[in-house]
Amino acid sequence: MGETVYFRPEDLTSYIERFFITYKVPQNHAKQIAEVITEADLRGVHSHGISRLHVYYGDRLRAGLMDPATPYKVLSETETTIRYDGGNGFGQVVGIAAMEKCIEKAKIHQVGIATVCNSNHYGIAAYYSMMALPHGMIGISMTNSQPLVAPTYGRERILGTNPISVAAPAHRRKPFVLDMATSIVPMGKIMLAETKGETVPLGYGINAKGELTQNPTEIRNGGALLPLGGPDYLSGYKGYGLALWVDILCGVLAGAAFGKDVGSPVATSGTPTNIGHFFLALNIQAFRDLSDFTRDMDALIEQLTSCPKEPGKERIYIHGEKEFEQKERYLKEGVALPVEVVEVLQKKGKESGVPFDLRPLHSKAG
Amino acid sequence: MGETVYFRPEDLTSYIERFFITYKVPQNHAKQIAEVITEADLRGVHSHGISRLHVYYGDRLRAGLMDPATPYKVLSETETTIRYDGGNGFGQVVGIAAMEKCIEKAKIHQVGIATVCNSNHYGIAAYYSMMALPHGMIGISMTNSQPLVAPTYGRERILGTNPISVAAPAHRRKPFVLDMATSIVPMGKIMLAETKGETVPLGYGINAKGELTQNPTEIRNGGALLPLGGPDYLSGYKGYGLALWVDILCGVLAGAAFGKDVGSPVATSGTPTNIGHFFLALNIQAFRDLSDFTRDMDALIEQLTSCPKEPGKERIYIHGEKEFEQKERYLKEGVALPVEVVEVLQKKGKESGVPFDLRPLHSKAG
Repeated sequence: MGETVYFRPEDLTSYIERFFITYKVPQNHAKQIAEVITEADLRGVHSHGISRLHVYYGDRLRAGLMDPATPYKVLSETETTIRYDGGNGFGQVVGIAAMEKCIEKAKIHQVGIATVCNSNHYGIAAYYSMMALPHGMIGISMTNSQPLVAPTYGRERILGTNPISVAAPAHRRKPFVLDMATSIVPMGKIMLAETKGETVPLGYGINAKGELTQNPTEIRNGGALLPLGGPDYLSGYKGYGLALWVDILCGVLAGAAFGKDVGSPVATSGTPTNIGHFFLALNIQAFRDLSDFTRDMDALIEQLTSCPKEPGKERIYIHGEKEFEQKERYLKEGVALPVEVVEVLQKKGKESGVPFDLRPLHSKAG
Repeated sequence: MGETVYFRPEDLTSYIERFFITYKVPQNHAKQIAEVITEADLRGVHSHGISRLHVYYGDRLRAGLMDPATPYKVLSETETTIRYDGGNGFGQVVGIAAMEKCIEKAKIHQVGIATVCNSNHYGIAAYYSMMALPHGMIGISMTNSQPLVAPTYGRERILGTNPISVAAPAHRRKPFVLDMATSIVPMGKIMLAETKGETVPLGYGINAKGELTQNPTEIRNGGALLPLGGPDYLSGYKGYGLALWVDILCGVLAGAAFGKDVGSPVATSGTPTNIGHFFLALNIQAFRDLSDFTRDMDALIEQLTSCPKEPGKERIYIHGEKEFEQKERYLKEGVALPVEVVEVLQKKGKESGVPFDLRPLHSKAG
């Protein structure tokens, strides 16, 4: 690996904000989007961070494929539910609005559920589920995405990596924040192995003939990712079922595209992606005192983390824990970006009229 | 394999009902429980069918470990939520009541959510999620269960195989009915391999030292099952996260036992299992016309089932499809039970004072 460059997170946020304002994104929206993107980097989920600024958003704004104003609107609403049209704008903007509305409804009616159609990539799913935490609620966030995953026994890409995020608060311990693609790995991991000239573990994907392969090029080029579980004998049909569940809520229920018809977040021509999202907030106090719930969460977490370890392992993690610790480190040391990412940001920043002129905190040889 | 004996499903139901009535279960409850158990056999999920009549229920009733009256009660209720104490009775009885209440709430408020604590094994999770289907609703059903699964990097059993079931209606196609344990396989599959003297695929479980093993005895005896995904490099932490999610809803939110403290459904001494369940019904019409939803469900199912197949596979299934077809066959031919299961039913039936005296439809040599 090459050099790593460290940036103050607030500098990244402010650059992203400036970038979007230049592209006619309203200032309050630009701030929200910048926060979601920086939060991804802070949590170490760099695949959804600033490295995607141009491919997911900038290039598509310039090609006129997304509406910078995110003119989202409410299609229907009840006391507990709301359905949005995302206006082919930023998934982050309508996503935050939708989750805020879920929380508002859950404060009064104990539960709030929102769907969004006609949207675009919304960043990390956990951003929205975690919004429920300060309100003493459990949050759920899902999105469908471009087809990359073959159903069990199939050899073509029909379903997205359709992530599920669930967040639940604890007391002294960090909250539980699951945020998982329903494929074993994202395509980015396959492409990284390809770049490095490495093979991937058997199970990650299949080639164009539908055979398991360890060759990342075969998976990327004409093949497909496998759902969580992998091949059928390891219960890959369960991951396939989870991916389908997400598509039923985010595609079919939301009235968005589903299956093969979901657009690519990196397409620079064609029709809107018509991605769909699903959000839920559930008020814990409808069931138990919040303090009893969080005390029991601590106890369950304690059971798990004190479980005797397998050989060579020192620690058992709760979902989200690594990300919270990464964020704490990055808030102290700055957010680490590979120099190659910085170089692309500099090149594309110049081209797009918003020079990436941030002074790094420091840098480290790889 | 040995002989297979075929029974009329209504004969099985009526035997189970008689059995429970003898053990002081109220008649209307006995009927419900018998229906849930027979439905498992009809769907080919024999691990939750009549073969468990004695180990899950009869033996425990005789030992005084379950309350045959299932004196469930409401602990708290709002317009959209309800929390039950299952009265240490049958999970089926309080499960049906809870899901009916979810549906009733969802008719008025679009969504209904129920939790149950102090319960016992509730049979197949799909029974309850499917209850939503005739009402034009999406149903969700989850339960926690005795610890059998090690968390990622751990080597002891902390979590249950904690199943998730989701049901959503289609139009011409069969509904989507996901019903999956969050482990790769249930312990029953490990024990079956052990009985047959076979090994299991690498990934199913670990030995007492926390090492992957293909030896079913090592997994059963001192080892643990692995969560969906298996080892960490195949993203087993996702299955671990799903199992934990289920325990947070069914254990912590419901105020039931969680983690290591969930009791065994086959224990014949000790304290109540204190199993917890979670149910949700969501009214599709809060978001879209039901006919638009089911039309799009058909379209998504069509995309999946018409996907080009991997070598040697002729068909791609939607979740629940195999079970619906199995049920159609069994309704015609009778429910197939291995002769060994029938022999146990005869032996235990005699011991328990309710002779298993059903005349089989026919039988087949294995």
